[in-house]
Amino acid sequence: MVTNNLVEHILETTYEDIPDRVIEHGKKSLLNWLGVTIGAAQHKSIDILLEVSNSLGTSQQVSIFGRSIKTDLLTAVLVNGTASHVFDFDDTHLETIHHPSGPVAPVALALGEKFDLSTKEILRAFVLGCEAELRIANSVYPSHYRNGFHITSSTGVFGAAIAAGILLKLSKEKMAMALGLAGTQSFGLREMFGTMTKPFHAGKAAQNGLYAAMLVEKGFTSSSQVLEAKRGFANVYSTSHNLGRINERWGKVWEFENNTFKPFACGIVLHPSIDACIQFSEYASPDEVEEIRLRVHPYVHELTSKENPKTGLEGKFSIYHTGAIAFLEKGASENQFQDERVNAGEVVQFRKKIKPMADEQIDKDKVVATLVLKDGTTKKLVIDHAIGSLQNPLTTEMLASKFMNLSSPIIGEESSKQVIEKIMKLEKLDYIHPVIEAID
Amino acid sequence: MVTNNLVEHILETTYEDIPDRVIEHGKKSLLNWLGVTIGAAQHKSIDILLEVSNSLGTSQQVSIFGRSIKTDLLTAVLVNGTASHVFDFDDTHLETIHHPSGPVAPVALALGEKFDLSTKEILRAFVLGCEAELRIANSVYPSHYRNGFHITSSTGVFGAAIAAGILLKLSKEKMAMALGLAGTQSFGLREMFGTMTKPFHAGKAAQNGLYAAMLVEKGFTSSSQVLEAKRGFANVYSTSHNLGRINERWGKVWEFENNTFKPFACGIVLHPSIDACIQFSEYASPDEVEEIRLRVHPYVHELTSKENPKTGLEGKFSIYHTGAIAFLEKGASENQFQDERVNAGEVVQFRKKIKPMADEQIDKDKVVATLVLKDGTTKKLVIDHAIGSLQNPLTTEMLASKFMNLSSPIIGEESSKQVIEKIMKLEKLDYIHPVIEAID
Repeated sequence: MVTNNLVEHILETTYEDIPDRVIEHGKKSLLNWLGVTIGAAQHKSIDILLEVSNSLGTSQQVSIFGRSIKTDLLTAVLVNGTASHVFDFDDTHLETIHHPSGPVAPVALALGEKFDLSTKEILRAFVLGCEAELRIANSVYPSHYRNGFHITSSTGVFGAAIAAGILLKLSKEKMAMALGLAGTQSFGLREMFGTMTKPFHAGKAAQNGLYAAMLVEKGFTSSSQVLEAKRGFANVYSTSHNLGRINERWGKVWEFENNTFKPFACGIVLHPSIDACIQFSEYASPDEVEEIRLRVHPYVHELTSKENPKTGLEGKFSIYHTGAIAFLEKGASENQFQDERVNAGEVVQFRKKIKPMADEQIDKDKVVATLVLKDGTTKKLVIDHAIGSLQNPLTTEMLASKFMNLSSPIIGEESSKQVIEKIMKLEKLDYIHPVIEAID
Repeated sequence: MVTNNLVEHILETTYEDIPDRVIEHGKKSLLNWLGVTIGAAQHKSIDILLEVSNSLGTSQQVSIFGRSIKTDLLTAVLVNGTASHVFDFDDTHLETIHHPSGPVAPVALALGEKFDLSTKEILRAFVLGCEAELRIANSVYPSHYRNGFHITSSTGVFGAAIAAGILLKLSKEKMAMALGLAGTQSFGLREMFGTMTKPFHAGKAAQNGLYAAMLVEKGFTSSSQVLEAKRGFANVYSTSHNLGRINERWGKVWEFENNTFKPFACGIVLHPSIDACIQFSEYASPDEVEEIRLRVHPYVHELTSKENPKTGLEGKFSIYHTGAIAFLEKGASENQFQDERVNAGEVVQFRKKIKPMADEQIDKDKVVATLVLKDGTTKKLVIDHAIGSLQNPLTTEMLASKFMNLSSPIIGEESSKQVIEKIMKLEKLDYIHPVIEAID
């Protein structure tokens, strides 16, 4: 009954039933997703996906964001979904370490573009797809993730199928079977982290979910009880689970609201100290600084102790580099993790002033930071909730700035501004095509 | 090291290293696979796959067997792989209940057709792909299967990637990564049995494996230790495993030889009684028969007790129907499981003469059968190893007859004969195109 109840909940929830604040969160999630997707559009892994797709002879149905080309529906959701996870800079549901938009947004936008659907219906499909996949993730977390599954793809495939099923207007019976056909294709090993295969998971989950809905629409049959069956998803893919979490308080509590946006393009443990260093930059110029002391949990200290990073990737694991660029450039976006920035003279000089210290008394998500100036003045900051955390979320302005940083180098400043403007009033547009045109 | 050792074994095994009897078994497996694939080419599930593929705008690269059309590579292996498992009449590795050709043969033949490759190289890719996937299946069986995974797709994806990797001439490093990208896409829930999704598993595994090899060929990166890693395939997809089985006595023992061909298009528990009834038909005409007594294990009795089947599918679970058509028509192919045959007057009459009895003393894979004629004579048969079992395999002639039954209604008798002739001397042909042409 779990699958069936979920399907009923989804199909009975209209756009009007979704609270305004959740729709607002949906638009921010879409903007964030578009930013990280467009930003990574020129990555080598995307080149390879498109090269193989060309060798197969794809048709031109919907857009590959940031490339000004089109491919068939299934290829597009794979490519766009993969791009969105390349920088590891997409949204995060902290309880399950799930990146909810990755498998769902490409499907909602691709079907929206193909059939020029109403923006409200696209928002509904996107929000409900994310809501359902996060509830499914909650039901099998933590055993499912600890066992080794990449929860973004393994449960994201359900979100993709739901978004597709809504936009293809599947009946209750067909939606349940679409979840069956999607769920049996659940996949993704955490062993793949650190390779191009990790972002591929998000795209492939989008593709598997969309394909499931398309086949079932035409009459393909599958199980209607994939979530709860004896040899169904929860029993096979987790050692312990709580299926009650999938349907409880549907429509009253929105799990999707627990989705957060990363302000900085590196591991979340560095975010508090970056936040502090950005704030310090208001008080002094680089030359005036004697040192910046950062007291962090020993785990954080160990994980980020790379004193002399040489590449952008190493820079992402260096509290010295992130402290320096946060103070010097007031941010830590992909731009700050280019090899060239990591080796820039003023950055290398300034990072000698960053002095991390391990302290058991400090929680992992906090920092006690002290700015010491050459004239002897000091300034102390305690960051309890770094910017980007659930308690201190990115404002729409910060999100817009993140989007501009990622998107402008690829599609230009003017187009990027238009995308922000259109996404933030998305429900007021009738159809999706002006958004797609702005990106192209 | 497990993944690495497997890759070395595969790449170092030339066509000439494979014993003649294993090549012979490979050709029989290909013939059997082509028969069940062509036979199911007109099934509704195949119609749906092709309808969706048309809506996506596929290109014409390689053949859909039994349809006289072409699609792109990735679609073709999905469609052909699915067709091969529709009748549940494909080959079976009894130890693991694996259908080894399903995910591998479509890949070997599709790449062979696309690049018109040498038949020896295709046979090598096919045999080694099957050999490796069965060894991987052995290493995680039984826990993997009992946990609920459909082992044909969940391990078949490796066989597909290996066949593709051989034909795309991947280096050692790339072959290991192709296994990584394939293995992370391992999937397939047993909950799906009884729906179109079950055969889809075989086709999707073929597609996932081929796609993995194609992406890695162009530079996509993945893990090189997917089988043994802490969060790799064996640890995540099984609760207990024996990775030693993957590489042990490689080249000395061929697991692929333990692959069997079903003579009858129904569950294996009915095969001994069908075998007996076919043999009885040599001794008397239908009118002379008073009754046929079939003493079987209680489990077999319970599973097959449908006395008045109305449809072909019900007929597959009726010892009465299978006994009757075995005696009357000397076989139990798909033809004997058409609704029309199940309801035919002479069949309905004769099945009243079939008298099954449960007997704890009889093993599940045996039958004690007694033919009683109206004149009082009796004839008793004990079937210890039904035709099609490992101990009593189908001869090439029987396999050819099975192929003709499946293939002739679809591509005609003359073409079917040509396919048999060409497959059975495959290694003597230089290139694969005459086989493909014979099917078309």
